[in-house]
Amino acid sequence: MELSIIKIGGNIIDDEGKLGVFLDAFAELKGAKILVHGGGKLATKVAEELGIGQQLVDGRRITDAETLRVVTMVYAGTINKQIVARLQSRGCPAIGLTGADGDAIRSHKRSHPTIDYGFVGDVDVVNTGLLTSLLALDRTLVFAPITHDGKGQLLNTNADTIAQELARGLGRSFDVSLVYSFEKSGVLRDAEDDSSVIRRIGPLEYQELKAKQLIFAGMIPKLDNAFAALRSGAGRVIIGRAEDLALLLAGKAGTTIVNE
Amino acid sequence: MELSIIKIGGNIIDDEGKLGVFLDAFAELKGAKILVHGGGKLATKVAEELGIGQQLVDGRRITDAETLRVVTMVYAGTINKQIVARLQSRGCPAIGLTGADGDAIRSHKRSHPTIDYGFVGDVDVVNTGLLTSLLALDRTLVFAPITHDGKGQLLNTNADTIAQELARGLGRSFDVSLVYSFEKSGVLRDAEDDSSVIRRIGPLEYQELKAKQLIFAGMIPKLDNAFAALRSGAGRVIIGRAEDLALLLAGKAGTTIVNE
Repeated sequence: MELSIIKIGGNIIDDEGKLGVFLDAFAELKGAKILVHGGGKLATKVAEELGIGQQLVDGRRITDAETLRVVTMVYAGTINKQIVARLQSRGCPAIGLTGADGDAIRSHKRSHPTIDYGFVGDVDVVNTGLLTSLLALDRTLVFAPITHDGKGQLLNTNADTIAQELARGLGRSFDVSLVYSFEKSGVLRDAEDDSSVIRRIGPLEYQELKAKQLIFAGMIPKLDNAFAALRSGAGRVIIGRAEDLALLLAGKAGTTIVNE
Repeated sequence: MELSIIKIGGNIIDDEGKLGVFLDAFAELKGAKILVHGGGKLATKVAEELGIGQQLVDGRRITDAETLRVVTMVYAGTINKQIVARLQSRGCPAIGLTGADGDAIRSHKRSHPTIDYGFVGDVDVVNTGLLTSLLALDRTLVFAPITHDGKGQLLNTNADTIAQELARGLGRSFDVSLVYSFEKSGVLRDAEDDSSVIRRIGPLEYQELKAKQLIFAGMIPKLDNAFAALRSGAGRVIIGRAEDLALLLAGKAGTTIVNE
């Protein structure tokens, strides 16, 4: 059975028009589907409104207790429930979840020899039994990037990682297409030229592109994630523009990452 | 099949110790169960932190757009997800929901000839099919008092009302015990004396107690709700202290409201 797992980034969430176009396309997708959203920009805005300073260590944001409070409110409250309500209005029977709900995604607090990341969770296990049951009820799942440790602690978890872990867990029983959607048309040869999309990248091409510095540096973590997702169970991974969702899944736009 | 629907008020949520005792008892309850929580005090605190003024008209709080934003964050985010994570740590497989999730509770924006209550929802329909399916997966449901109108709009809805509507909807297929838990031991003859609990109230006793002014005024809306819930499908309604949950359901504490 086919399953589409779509990750949308903060730039789409913050743009009312783009989000609407994306949700129209997402609601129309046939078959089992899961949406994973971020929302860092709105969280930063609410933290500022609340006068909560953002701590950065070596350029990484630290999730202290106050920041965890903000991301839980914004991701699991504001963004998740607004997306769910808007999908319902489009006839898409969405249920919003965090990793704590139904023990869907369990993680542990990151431990690092020199940096205390605070309440950040690295995923241990995805509850594929529960998720398969919910998908079998013909429900669409909408994940906020919050997990839990099974001991009562919520943890902030990277949305790209959640999408990848869902693909890994569900890849055993579904034919998974994983889409990382963002504001660009795909993996670009030239960051400034949206028509320079590389349509298909396998592991060998990836090494070549990296070696020859033919892709810009900002894409490398995304591509590393994409290959990791492929190795761990996704049938295919597609990177492209959120508003092009139907075209991306049809292989008519974006960059498809393949394992061969 | 038996189903317990338990509503807890804001005074319990704000008290770390009482909430822990309540969650221990709730996690231990056998059978199908649903928790409905409020959280008005924390919402008021966050609104103050954000500098959002609370509008009152004729003593009623108005849910303007900014207040809706706050209650969605606090009820569906902070409180719902913390309760879910804490129940998981107690071995209780909780899933947190709003009325928007899975179209669980659909409502319409309240219209009133003279007062604009803002984004307040009066319940139209409970999706008993979905809720029965989720309960059949042996999941415990935790409801935040937010609903939706099916057109993409979230609405703030009274938690007592949500508990009553769930009892009404699910009362057709379950033998429902509905518990309104709060900080007092039950319906009291004397508001200052916690040992003056009236153990059992039927419709006739209720009329007498009201006529003779033997119960204090603050209890009357709660009792009106309780009788409405009984008329609409709950098998029994119990009012009492959250920490006494097991005793309340066993009929050994609190006030049981009966239809005869």
